[in-house]
Amino acid sequence: MDDLTERLRAIVGADGLLSRAEVAQRSAGYLRADSLQARLLVRPRSTDEVAAVLKACNALRQPLVTHGGLTGLVHGGDAEPDEIILSLERMNAIESIDPLQRVAQVQAGVSLQALQEAAEAQDLFFPLDLGARGSCTLGGNVATNAGGNRVIRYGMTRALVLGLEAVLADGSVVSSLNRMIKNNAGYDLKQLFVGSEGTLGVITRIVLRLFERPKSQDVALVAVDSFAALTRFLKHIDAGLGGSLSAFEAMWREFYQLVTTPPAKSQPPLPDTHPYYVLVEAQGADPEKDAQRFNAALESALGQGLIADAVIAHSSRERAGIWALRDDVLQITREGLPITFDVSLPIAAMEAYVAEVRAALAAWPGHRCWIWGHLGDGNLHLAVLAAATRAEIERIVYRPLEKSGGSVSAEHGVGLEKKPYLALCRNSGELALMRTLKRSLDPHNILNPGKIFAP
Amino acid sequence: MDDLTERLRAIVGADGLLSRAEVAQRSAGYLRADSLQARLLVRPRSTDEVAAVLKACNALRQPLVTHGGLTGLVHGGDAEPDEIILSLERMNAIESIDPLQRVAQVQAGVSLQALQEAAEAQDLFFPLDLGARGSCTLGGNVATNAGGNRVIRYGMTRALVLGLEAVLADGSVVSSLNRMIKNNAGYDLKQLFVGSEGTLGVITRIVLRLFERPKSQDVALVAVDSFAALTRFLKHIDAGLGGSLSAFEAMWREFYQLVTTPPAKSQPPLPDTHPYYVLVEAQGADPEKDAQRFNAALESALGQGLIADAVIAHSSRERAGIWALRDDVLQITREGLPITFDVSLPIAAMEAYVAEVRAALAAWPGHRCWIWGHLGDGNLHLAVLAAATRAEIERIVYRPLEKSGGSVSAEHGVGLEKKPYLALCRNSGELALMRTLKRSLDPHNILNPGKIFAP
Repeated sequence: MDDLTERLRAIVGADGLLSRAEVAQRSAGYLRADSLQARLLVRPRSTDEVAAVLKACNALRQPLVTHGGLTGLVHGGDAEPDEIILSLERMNAIESIDPLQRVAQVQAGVSLQALQEAAEAQDLFFPLDLGARGSCTLGGNVATNAGGNRVIRYGMTRALVLGLEAVLADGSVVSSLNRMIKNNAGYDLKQLFVGSEGTLGVITRIVLRLFERPKSQDVALVAVDSFAALTRFLKHIDAGLGGSLSAFEAMWREFYQLVTTPPAKSQPPLPDTHPYYVLVEAQGADPEKDAQRFNAALESALGQGLIADAVIAHSSRERAGIWALRDDVLQITREGLPITFDVSLPIAAMEAYVAEVRAALAAWPGHRCWIWGHLGDGNLHLAVLAAATRAEIERIVYRPLEKSGGSVSAEHGVGLEKKPYLALCRNSGELALMRTLKRSLDPHNILNPGKIFAP
Repeated sequence: MDDLTERLRAIVGADGLLSRAEVAQRSAGYLRADSLQARLLVRPRSTDEVAAVLKACNALRQPLVTHGGLTGLVHGGDAEPDEIILSLERMNAIESIDPLQRVAQVQAGVSLQALQEAAEAQDLFFPLDLGARGSCTLGGNVATNAGGNRVIRYGMTRALVLGLEAVLADGSVVSSLNRMIKNNAGYDLKQLFVGSEGTLGVITRIVLRLFERPKSQDVALVAVDSFAALTRFLKHIDAGLGGSLSAFEAMWREFYQLVTTPPAKSQPPLPDTHPYYVLVEAQGADPEKDAQRFNAALESALGQGLIADAVIAHSSRERAGIWALRDDVLQITREGLPITFDVSLPIAAMEAYVAEVRAALAAWPGHRCWIWGHLGDGNLHLAVLAAATRAEIERIVYRPLEKSGGSVSAEHGVGLEKKPYLALCRNSGELALMRTLKRSLDPHNILNPGKIFAP
């Protein structure tokens, strides 16, 4: 047993350490066919153990990659054969929920769904929500600044984090477990770690904001006949619902057709001949009055010609049915494994952008291109299946973003997958400052090295 | 003319430079009796000029202090006699407002009120609001992460900033003018500068988030008979209004009496015998239905015994009247200049905290202590007038915060005034990381040196 293994075993115990062979028996994660690889996997039980592991690794210049629930989509958690994986899987306690202050304090390995359910049990609401809720961890959500379905109302994960504790590369612990909405006493250090993909520190504990549980949920599926009408409808419904709009999920026709034709399980609630569809959701406090307001806002949109057709869910089963259709994203894999994208750009540039991507893809007859996304946040997902190389398709999707000030990653992060394209949307001044931060917090480059940008 | 003056004159022109004597003719700011002092005051017209000024100062190790509207309350903009003041007063253009994307791009010297009015002219809404709106600048709001009246609904300034441009100490420009709600392409650099009080860079341009303009505004003044009822009423009204609660401003009896007795102009809308009063505001989209919901939520609070009495505003004049009462904070100066505080703490700890402060102040018979604040955000303001030293009063107000995890600054920042007390609410790990950041971004300590913490 080598020196490092012995040291780590002394810190986390024999059951806290997996060998290379044991690691190789674990899946590399969601939608991955390969298995994990690493020199070792360590599973600390406490912040102190994380600190001791990092101190030992830093002294030996041993790089390590932190793992949450392995649901990331950008190869942000890939480890090189000689790297170590630090898994937070045994730090999965919900430490407290305070219904008066409306905050939860959790260890980083708690799953998103576990917190959602614990909040609900106290008549509270944790608004972050995404398809991977059962597997993804809150530590991973914070480290990647996860987005999801309700960003338009509650913001991204960053907006829900009040405080956190992180261990720096040298093993020092920064415990910044603020519980207040307002705290301007010095730099807001948590912001450094949110969205830094494990490159600046290891997040061990988090204080998260909770909300009063909504009492009403109104959902509709709407068909729209032009992009101009789609954007006007967004403004109309947002103003008309007075701040209660909680989702505005757009689907281009091809995506809608895909998720409403067999083998997909959903039936089309509206004819599939319109160019755009939107799932609209509002959350409020008064089921009866909220439903009246929701219906009135849709009726006036219909009257003004902003929308062509609409179906309003009248039961929780119907609401779940419309959401299930939107969430059945795995249908994009039924003809092969497409290349998927997560871009953001100003809404005013979106129609021209999609047209440009489509025109370029026309060079490959028979290609498929599905588009959907969180339109209210300027966030589109694209899935492209074409007889072209990955690099060719990536260029087609990423290059036109540059002129509109768009981003190659709206909510998935950069990892390894988008690293080659980062310079399309971040300038040299920004990249230089990112490197300054990385060097000052992790001078030996041991934390998730090589992810996001070259050091 | 010395070398530095000559260099700066070459950059900003003769009219861009004020001498020591000219500087001394300007007031040091809001509620200040003294005048500004500095070696020079420079007034650049562009980011390029700011960059050239900083490059010159950095080369000569010349410290400088950036100024916005001089409405800060913690001596964050004080300059030493040999320091230079960098004023953004000539960078006051609203560069663009995009009603579809709902963003504004401004130079840092634009006043808060100018942006509020420009947004309103396009049927949009910029929610940040505070008493100093006419004088304070958006650059200052961002540099101090200003709070204000509507944080409970829209968050602090940080939540409204989508992108910014800042000049670093060495004169390099970091232009990170993101316009999208979602952008996870690398570190979110703007977060570094928000709330850093001019110590990490000079903010020159900002992209801010706008909202659809609310169509309804409901305001009530409520009397409450116990602190337990006050906190239960907050939960009740927040849940009952379904996300439309936009202010929950509490006033302890002494404050309420102060602002409703002459020479204050406001009449008391409710008898002044209750221990607590709250201004409640909701903003929505439908004046008629929103008013019904607002009234119903108050009625049920009355029915459940959460509130003792309430008066609901029935006109914009009455709404303004209730707000005027809450905003008449200057009444605290009518018996002398009190020491004012801006603390935050968990709501559950608040009642005991106030009792402890009051008990300690009892050592000075005839003292006055007024308390009010943004209770929904855990933020209290205290004003204390007593025949004690500033240090004695500060100890009484700040020390008890330590045990509840409170903060010596909820929204005003640290500046010089709270620097001696920062260690009460930030631990050594946090302070060490703040210093690491400061040293890596401003190695020669030229940017607002000595503010927040000792380098």
